Amino acid sequence: MLKKYQQLFMPIITLTTDFGEKDHFAGAVKGAIYTEMPDVRIVDISHSISPFNIPEAAYIIQNAYSSFPKGTIHIIGIDSEMNLENKHIAIKLDDHFFICANNGIMSMICADIAPEKIVEINIHDRIETSFPALDVFVKVACHIARGGTLEVIGKVINSIKPIKNILPFVNDEQNQIVGSVIYIDNYGNVISNIKKSFFEKIQQGRAYEISARNNTFKKIYTKYSDVVNFDTPIEKRNDEGKGLVVFNSSNYLEIAIYKSNSQTSGSASTLMGLDLMDSISVNFLNE
Amino acid sequence: MLKKYQQLFMPIITLTTDFGEKDHFAGAVKGAIYTEMPDVRIVDISHSISPFNIPEAAYIIQNAYSSFPKGTIHIIGIDSEMNLENKHIAIKLDDHFFICANNGIMSMICADIAPEKIVEINIHDRIETSFPALDVFVKVACHIARGGTLEVIGKVINSIKPIKNILPFVNDEQNQIVGSVIYIDNYGNVISNIKKSFFEKIQQGRAYEISARNNTFKKIYTKYSDVVNFDTPIEKRNDEGKGLVVFNSSNYLEIAIYKSNSQTSGSASTLMGLDLMDSISVNFLNE
Amino acid sequence: MLKKYQQLFMPIITLTTDFGEKDHFAGAVKGAIYTEMPDVRIVDISHSISPFNIPEAAYIIQNAYSSFPKGTIHIIGIDSEMNLENKHIAIKLDDHFFICANNGIMSMICADIAPEKIVEINIHDRIETSFPALDVFVKVACHIARGGTLEVIGKVINSIKPIKNILPFVNDEQNQIVGSVIYIDNYGNVISNIKKSFFEKIQQGRAYEISARNNTFKKIYTKYSDVVNFDTPIEKRNDEGKGLVVFNSSNYLEIAIYKSNSQTSGSASTLMGLDLMDSISVNFLNE
Repeated sequence: MLKKYQQLFMPIITLTTDFGEKDHFAGAVKGAIYTEMPDVRIVDISHSISPFNIPEAAYIIQNAYSSFPKGTIHIIGIDSEMNLENKHIAIKLDDHFFICANNGIMSMICADIAPEKIVEINIHDRIETSFPALDVFVKVACHIARGGTLEVIGKVINSIKPIKNILPFVNDEQNQIVGSVIYIDNYGNVISNIKKSFFEKIQQGRAYEISARNNTFKKIYTKYSDVVNFDTPIEKRNDEGKGLVVFNSSNYLEIAIYKSNSQTSGSASTLMGLDLMDSISVNFLNE
Repeated sequence: MLKKYQQLFMPIITLTTDFGEKDHFAGAVKGAIYTEMPDVRIVDISHSISPFNIPEAAYIIQNAYSSFPKGTIHIIGIDSEMNLENKHIAIKLDDHFFICANNGIMSMICADIAPEKIVEINIHDRIETSFPALDVFVKVACHIARGGTLEVIGKVINSIKPIKNILPFVNDEQNQIVGSVIYIDNYGNVISNIKKSFFEKIQQGRAYEISARNNTFKKIYTKYSDVVNFDTPIEKRNDEGKGLVVFNSSNYLEIAIYKSNSQTSGSASTLMGLDLMDSISVNFLNE
Repeated sequence: MLKKYQQLFMPIITLTTDFGEKDHFAGAVKGAIYTEMPDVRIVDISHSISPFNIPEAAYIIQNAYSSFPKGTIHIIGIDSEMNLENKHIAIKLDDHFFICANNGIMSMICADIAPEKIVEINIHDRIETSFPALDVFVKVACHIARGGTLEVIGKVINSIKPIKNILPFVNDEQNQIVGSVIYIDNYGNVISNIKKSFFEKIQQGRAYEISARNNTFKKIYTKYSDVVNFDTPIEKRNDEGKGLVVFNSSNYLEIAIYKSNSQTSGSASTLMGLDLMDSISVNFLNE
């Protein structure tokens, strides 16, 4: 089925990097892909990951990849200089392919879905490079896009390097979750590592109180505008700027400000003083 | 003719959003489009609209869309969470298609060109979503790209929600236009809502004085470098940094600084203290 | 061979501009290209060149272009308003095509590789425009993409406008190179105009000391992580934040900080106080 899809349509290669929007790196990688393989689609997921920020990259690739067709090849160019402790890997998982350094980027996806195959890339003896995303990852991506197997470009390994603290902590009494901020989005909304399914498993239908610094919330909305009181005439409302908690479109618990803007009126991050790694806790109330 | 074009060439879907350059949202939307419809071209117009800034989005889509081929489908993902007061619409206008929330974004284009058809999208009962640009707009765009009609995905309506203050004001004596700043571009140039055709209709050939804060101008140039005195030897010139007024490439009256740079030497916005919503007035001199 | 490649595959047009990520300019140019020529690939190299910054643009296009297939057409939209002193040119060089203003952008590439042909574009009498990248460059690019010759759209000229100070200075004794900072990348790394081949020609195997402000270095690494002492247990290391010198992936001498981040821990530029145009000198030690 996957094979058939790949034969019928142009292969897709996505790029997720910390190259930024200005430098020539992303352009050079695209040029190298088209040189190697003219009939391919290249899609930018993001080039604006904070430099060397593995958890950010892990969050972004996890939430973007599954919208793409089966068979898509994802190049992740973050902290990819190869050295004794940072090898290059290719992973087949959920009928998608991922090419990156073995630095923890894939541990968030792999925590949910078991990889079908992992290889440590070993074509480096044929390539001298100080720009591995360009020289190594492009070669591997085009090899896969042409239908090549992972075993040809690497040796099978069984596990990948984990990242710490991607899962929230639950106390022994099972009445408290302590999570942390793993991402702050373009609207300044603050995203925790507490997934909806995990929350509900611990919650067991109990009431709860969510705390982050000095802010507490007793309700989780299903969409941002649920905070608006539509019965009040529009000219008398002041909902913009209200804080709220939602499970976001990726099903993570998120502290948000309705119609926030970090540059002007402020956002959940700026107004509540919440930053990456800060704690967010949920206390469940026993009847 | 439009039909014929659509049949001959790969459909084009453009994206204009406030998703930013970093988050996974734009990547996820592209993946969803290719999953739904492999043979399509996706073009980014902008993902850097200020969050929830409807007038900015209106200005950008108005000035970008008409360069695209007839039949192009434009997804506009700004303030698109659906609620009681914010419905989703699809519009056919000028042989282009636009898919967005009914929040005023389209009122700037529609002020110039009457829409051929407007529908309020009603496929939501089939789709549960907290990410409508991904789940609803993509479905509608691909439906149109496959040649489907608007009536299949919505019910026809006759008008859309306006935005306020997009048109300048003219006094009863017809000797003053009071406009306002609607956009500040990448060079820090300050763009008013006064279009060239509107200006000339009121002007009737009269001399004028343009005022914005403490700055006055008596001339409108046709290009930026008209401010340069090419007769002066190049080493004696100091034209960079000069303020001027032009009708820009979109035919809006713009206050600019020659070769400005907001980050270094300063721009019209930073040096003249002009910001969004500030007034720009034109006084016509009666003989 | 070039002709054959062009016939077999969809032509590629790249864009390198100072339009920024937000404005409609880049989107409009892409729309105009697809309108003129539906079967083409458009690749963004960068839209985030600092406004009017010719040396930055020269560095980026030089390092990106050669990854693309032969026959690729590169539109460079920086400072492209035409006037008495700023004409439009098209250049064939290294089997690539470049379309830009004659403002020095191409002098860095041309210093290394002699152009095969240069023309001054003369189709302006047929086009009235205040947006030349849209109206003129797109027409020229599509003309070339269809296999048209440069002579049809311009008259042959023999030289282009240079930019100053792109080459480092060597003293008479041949024991000192004085270069300058020409680019600061997304990681805040500071890139000089001293190329590896030039350095080695002057060095002749001698020891050296590299100075930039108060910082001195006696070694040039081949990759960033060479600064790490892998014999030390990982929990006792503090290599992140170390300054170092490398020849970067484009073979320019670069002062870097290992795993730097301008926004958080600081970068070579912010921590060492190095900015564009600052001097970087190399003193060779005579035995």
